[in-house]
Amino acid sequence: MNYRLLARLLGLISLLIGGTMIFSMPWALPSLGYRTGETVEAFESAGFMGLLGSIAICTTVGGGLIWLGKGDKGQFYRKEAMAVVGLSWVLATVLGALPFYLTGVGRGPSVRLFGQDTKPHIALAGYQNWRAIDHLSAETYVAVESLLDAGATGLPEDELIAATNDPNVVTRLKRLCDADETWNHLIIEPGTEELPADRANNFRLQYLNMTLVDCLFESQSGFSTTGATVISDLEDPEIVPHCILFWRSSMHFLGGLGIVVLFVVILGHGSIGKAMMRAEMPGPTKEGSTARMQHTAWMVAGMYIAMNVILAIILWILGMSAFDALCHTFGTMATGGFSTYNASLGHFDSPAIEYVVTLFMFLAGCNFVLLFLSLTKPWKVFSDVEWRVYLFVIVASTVFLVSYGLWFGDFDSRTDAIRYSLFQVVSIMTTTGFGTHDFDMWNHFGRGLMLLLMFVGGCAGSTGGGLKVIRMILFGKVLRHEIEHAFHPNVVRPLRLGGKPVDDPELGKNILVYFGLIAAIFVASWLFLIMVEPDTTWGHNTESKLIDTGSAIAATLNNIGPGLGTVGATQNYGHFSEISKFLFVWLMMLGRLELFSVLVLFYPGFWHRAVSGAWSTCHSPFGPFGRVGVSAPERVYELR
Amino acid sequence: MNYRLLARLLGLISLLIGGTMIFSMPWALPSLGYRTGETVEAFESAGFMGLLGSIAICTTVGGGLIWLGKGDKGQFYRKEAMAVVGLSWVLATVLGALPFYLTGVGRGPSVRLFGQDTKPHIALAGYQNWRAIDHLSAETYVAVESLLDAGATGLPEDELIAATNDPNVVTRLKRLCDADETWNHLIIEPGTEELPADRANNFRLQYLNMTLVDCLFESQSGFSTTGATVISDLEDPEIVPHCILFWRSSMHFLGGLGIVVLFVVILGHGSIGKAMMRAEMPGPTKEGSTARMQHTAWMVAGMYIAMNVILAIILWILGMSAFDALCHTFGTMATGGFSTYNASLGHFDSPAIEYVVTLFMFLAGCNFVLLFLSLTKPWKVFSDVEWRVYLFVIVASTVFLVSYGLWFGDFDSRTDAIRYSLFQVVSIMTTTGFGTHDFDMWNHFGRGLMLLLMFVGGCAGSTGGGLKVIRMILFGKVLRHEIEHAFHPNVVRPLRLGGKPVDDPELGKNILVYFGLIAAIFVASWLFLIMVEPDTTWGHNTESKLIDTGSAIAATLNNIGPGLGTVGATQNYGHFSEISKFLFVWLMMLGRLELFSVLVLFYPGFWHRAVSGAWSTCHSPFGPFGRVGVSAPERVYELR
Repeated sequence: MNYRLLARLLGLISLLIGGTMIFSMPWALPSLGYRTGETVEAFESAGFMGLLGSIAICTTVGGGLIWLGKGDKGQFYRKEAMAVVGLSWVLATVLGALPFYLTGVGRGPSVRLFGQDTKPHIALAGYQNWRAIDHLSAETYVAVESLLDAGATGLPEDELIAATNDPNVVTRLKRLCDADETWNHLIIEPGTEELPADRANNFRLQYLNMTLVDCLFESQSGFSTTGATVISDLEDPEIVPHCILFWRSSMHFLGGLGIVVLFVVILGHGSIGKAMMRAEMPGPTKEGSTARMQHTAWMVAGMYIAMNVILAIILWILGMSAFDALCHTFGTMATGGFSTYNASLGHFDSPAIEYVVTLFMFLAGCNFVLLFLSLTKPWKVFSDVEWRVYLFVIVASTVFLVSYGLWFGDFDSRTDAIRYSLFQVVSIMTTTGFGTHDFDMWNHFGRGLMLLLMFVGGCAGSTGGGLKVIRMILFGKVLRHEIEHAFHPNVVRPLRLGGKPVDDPELGKNILVYFGLIAAIFVASWLFLIMVEPDTTWGHNTESKLIDTGSAIAATLNNIGPGLGTVGATQNYGHFSEISKFLFVWLMMLGRLELFSVLVLFYPGFWHRAVSGAWSTCHSPFGPFGRVGVSAPERVYELR
Repeated sequence: MNYRLLARLLGLISLLIGGTMIFSMPWALPSLGYRTGETVEAFESAGFMGLLGSIAICTTVGGGLIWLGKGDKGQFYRKEAMAVVGLSWVLATVLGALPFYLTGVGRGPSVRLFGQDTKPHIALAGYQNWRAIDHLSAETYVAVESLLDAGATGLPEDELIAATNDPNVVTRLKRLCDADETWNHLIIEPGTEELPADRANNFRLQYLNMTLVDCLFESQSGFSTTGATVISDLEDPEIVPHCILFWRSSMHFLGGLGIVVLFVVILGHGSIGKAMMRAEMPGPTKEGSTARMQHTAWMVAGMYIAMNVILAIILWILGMSAFDALCHTFGTMATGGFSTYNASLGHFDSPAIEYVVTLFMFLAGCNFVLLFLSLTKPWKVFSDVEWRVYLFVIVASTVFLVSYGLWFGDFDSRTDAIRYSLFQVVSIMTTTGFGTHDFDMWNHFGRGLMLLLMFVGGCAGSTGGGLKVIRMILFGKVLRHEIEHAFHPNVVRPLRLGGKPVDDPELGKNILVYFGLIAAIFVASWLFLIMVEPDTTWGHNTESKLIDTGSAIAATLNNIGPGLGTVGATQNYGHFSEISKFLFVWLMMLGRLELFSVLVLFYPGFWHRAVSGAWSTCHSPFGPFGRVGVSAPERVYELR
C-alpha cells in the first residue's frame, strides 16, 4: 500500500470538501438565503462562523495530509483507488459533519409530549426512554429545560398517565422534583386548567443541539444521497440556518457526483458494469483504457452538472426562490431527498413542480452513460433491458398503487391518485425519498409494496441506490438457469442479457453472493437494532417496532431516507438512540459503496499485503471490483 | 417416465394412508378416546363414518392405481423416485383431507365479535371482511345464523360501532335487516341492556364446517409436520371428534416417518447430505449402495418408531390419557405441533411434561443417523459441527430470551422464564410449534428473535423443517470464503466442515441458490398475500398486517405452525381467505420437500424427456438431488 499517495489523495478530498463549503457561505446573507415567499431574515452569523470554522479545519486536515504525502511519484493503482473510495467516504462524513456541530444546529427532535399526531412519540425528556429520566443525566436536564423554555409547562396528572401509558409517571416525576424543582412545572395539580397556549401543537425540544452522532448521521445521509434526517424542524432559521441547509443539500450534490464518477472509474469494471456495457457504449470497457475512462468520467460528470443546472432553472421559473430551487435540485439529481421544508416537496403543493421533479428523479435513476448515448440516439434507450425493466416496474407499481389507493379511499380523486402514487413510486424506487403524500397512511398493500420497491433501486451507473435493477434481473435469470440446469446438466447455456451472452462465468455466483450478503447484513442489523433500541422509542405503538425497524434498515441500507411508521414520510430518525444512529451511518455507507469498498477497510490483509498488483487480477463477487482482466498492476490515473 | 410404476407406487401409498386411518377408528369408542381427566363421551358415529368413507375412497383409489400399473417390471429409478416424492405428497394431502370433509368437522373459526382478547378479530359474519355482509352470500347467511345459535344476539349500536371501527355498521346491518329479519338480533335498541350471558367470552361460529381448502390445509399441515391449524376449538367433540383428532396427529407420524426415510433414500444424496456425512456414518454414502441404503432406511425408521413408543409411555406415566399421550407424541417426534387442546401443551401446565417434551423435540431436531451412532458412542455427537451449532443456538437464544423477558417483566419468576423460554425456543427452532406461553406477548426483541429462529430449523436428516442448521453454517462459510477469495484470488481453499474439506465443488453455489430461492419465494408470497388478503382480516390491528403476514409465510414455509399476531400462538389460520389458505398449503409443501421435489412437477421437461438416466448425473443446486456421481441409471429399489 502506497500510504503517501493515499494521504495525498485524501488531502485533496479534504480540500475539495472545504472548497465546496465556501459556496454555502453566501446563503447566510439575508438577501440570498430565503425560502420561497419568505420575508428577509437577519444575517446568520452562527451558521457563517460554523462554516468558516469547518473550512479552516478542512484546509488544515487537507494541507496536513498533502504534506504527509509529499514526494510521492503519484502512480494511482487500483489498490489505492479502493482505499481512497472507502477512506475518503469516512473522511467526508467526518468533515461534512463539522458545520452542523460547530454551528450548534438544533435537531429539534421528534420527541413530543402531546400532539394531534395520531402517532405520538412519548419521550418526555432526554432521548427516547423513561429510564433517562431516572438518571437525571446532564442531557436530560438540558432537554427538560428546553422543554420548559418551549412552553411545555403544566400537564394534568391523569393526562400525563394516559399519554405515557405509564401509571408510575407521576411518582417518577415527583421523585425528580425532589432533586430539581424545575420538574415541578411539568405537572399541574388536578383541577387546575392552566394549559399552555401551544398545547394543540406538538411540543418540541427546540434547542436540543445535535450530538456528534447526529452530525455524522446527517453528513453520511447527505454524502450517501440517502436523505434521512434527524432534524425535525427545518423551517426555523434559529435552529437550522439557511446556509447550513444549503451545505446539507450540497453534500447530496457532491455525493451524487462522486458516485457517477466512481461508477465509471471503478464500479463499472465489476461484473455488473461489464454485464450491461454494450460495444457502442463509450463507458467502461473490458480493457479499461485510461484515456477512454477519463473521457467518460468527464462526460458523465458534465452531464450530471448540466442536468442540475437545467432542473434548477426550471424550478426557479416555476416559482421557487434560488435557495429552494438549488437545494431541491441537489436532492433530486443525486436521488438524495433532503428538502428545506418539513413537508418535503409536498410543501409547494404544485402539480407542475411535482411532475418536473418526478421526471428528473426518473432520469437520475437511469444509467448516465445510457443517458448520454440517448442525447444523440434517443431510441437506443429502449434497447437497454435494464432501462425497460426499470420503466416497467415504475409503471406497474403505480398502476397497483392507484387501484388499491382508490379502492381503500386513500386518495380524494383519480387525478390525485395518479399524481401522488407516481411521485412516491419514482421517489422511493430511485431511492430519492422526497415526499408529497404520507404513504405510511396508505393501505397496507401499498405500504408493503413501497417497502419492497426500496430494495429494487435505480439502474447501475445512476445516482440511485438500492440493489439496482440490473442485479434484480440477473438474480431472476440465475435462479431460473439453476433450476433448468438441474434438468439439463449437459447443456451449459450462458447468461444472456438483452439477447447477448454475458461473458463473465463468475457472474451468476457473484450476483448470488451479493444478494446473500445483503440478506445477511439486513438480518444481522435488524436483530441488533431490535436488541439495542428500547421498545419505549415507539411510545404507544410498540406493535409496529418489528416492521418499523425493518423498514429503517431497508431505508438506510438502500439509501432511501423515509421508511414506515416511526421513520415514515412525516417522521425522522432523531428519536433513535445513539448506537442505533451509528448503525444507520454504517449501513448508509455500506449501501452506497455497494458493500465491498467498506468491508475491505476491515480486512487486515488489505493493508499488509506487499503485492500491490494482486488487486488487479482478483475476481470478486462484488460489482465494484469484478475480474479486471489484466495481470499487471493497472494504472488508473496519473496525477501530476 | 415409467408411468405404470408411478401409478403402482402411488397406489401403494394410497393403501398405506387408508390403512393408517384404520388405527384412528377405535378412538371413536368412548372407552378409548377421551382426554386426560375427561368424562366418557358418546360413540362418535360421525367421525367413525367419516373415517370409514375415507378408507373406502383410499382403497378404491389405491386399487385403481395399482390396477393401472399392473404388468410393470418394477425397476425403481431415481426419476420415478422424484416423481413419487412430489406426487405422493399431493395425493396424501388430498386423501388426508377426506376424514375432515366427510365427517363435516366444524372449524369453529377464530372469527370473533367481542372478547376479552387484546386483539379482537372483528368479523361479524362470513369469512373475514365486511364486504361479505353487503353481498349476503349463502356462506354469510350460514355464518350469521350460527352466530345467532351461539348466543350472539343483541349488541348496542354504539358498542357495535366502537368495536368495528365502522361508523356505517348500523346502517349496513339495518339494510340487511330488511332482507332478513334474523339480522335484527344483532342489534339492541340503545338503552336496552339485554346482553347475552357469554358476552365475556369470545363468540365463535361453532358450526361453520371446514371447507375443502380448510381440509386440504389441515391435511397438508399434518403431513408436512407444520402443525398450523384452521380449527379454533379442539376441545368440543361435537365439532371435532376424538377419532378425527387422532387422525390429525397420525398424519404427523406418517409425515415424520416419510421425511426421515426420504432423507436416507434421496435427500441425503444431495450436497447437504454429502457435506455432513462422515466415513463412520452408516447412512447415505457417496456411492449409495442399495443394500446399505435399505439398511439405513430401516434403521432410521426403526429408531423413529422406538422414540415414539418411549415418549408415549413416558407421557402416559406422567398422567396423560392414552389418547393424549399418543397425539402429543406424534406431534413431538415429527416436530409437528398438533395438540388436542386449545392451549396446546400449556393445557397440562406441568413442568415435568414440558421438560420431557422439550428433550424429545430437541432429539427430533437432531440428525437421526447421528442419533443412531450415539447409541453406541454418545461422545460422537460432540464431534458433529451441525449438532454443536444447533445446541449453541438453542442455548444462546434461551439466555437472551430469559434476560430480556425478565427485564421487560414478561415472566413472573426466573424459574418460569427458563421453563417457558427454553420450551418455546426448542419448539420454534425445531419447527414443532407447541405452545406453553404466548410468545407473541413477549417484548419485541423476543418476538423478533423467535421470527428469525423460524428460519434456522432443525438439523439435516431430522424431522425438523426450516432451512436447516447445516445450511446456515455453510451459508456463513461461503460468504466469508467469497470475501477472502476476493483478496487472495490465487489461493483456492476448499470449504471445510468439522475440519474436513467438503469435496463437492458446486456446494457453495448450491447453498447460495437455495437461499436465493427461499428469499424469492418468501418475498413473492408476501407480496401476493398482502395483495389478496383484505386489511379487514386484522380488524382493528391492521397496523400489524405487514409483520403478521411475513410471520405467517415464515411459519408455513418453514413448517413451524404459529407465527406472530393474528397467527400467533393463541390464534390460528381459520380467518384467512381461501386463496391465502391455498397459498399456505403450497408453501408448507414447498418447505417440507426442500423446494425441488415440488418445483419439479411443474417443469414440463421432467415428464417428457425420454432419457430417464439423465437424472442420475444431474447436479442440481438443491440438497435433495445433488450430483449423484454415477453416470448410468441407478436402481434405487427393486419392488417384488
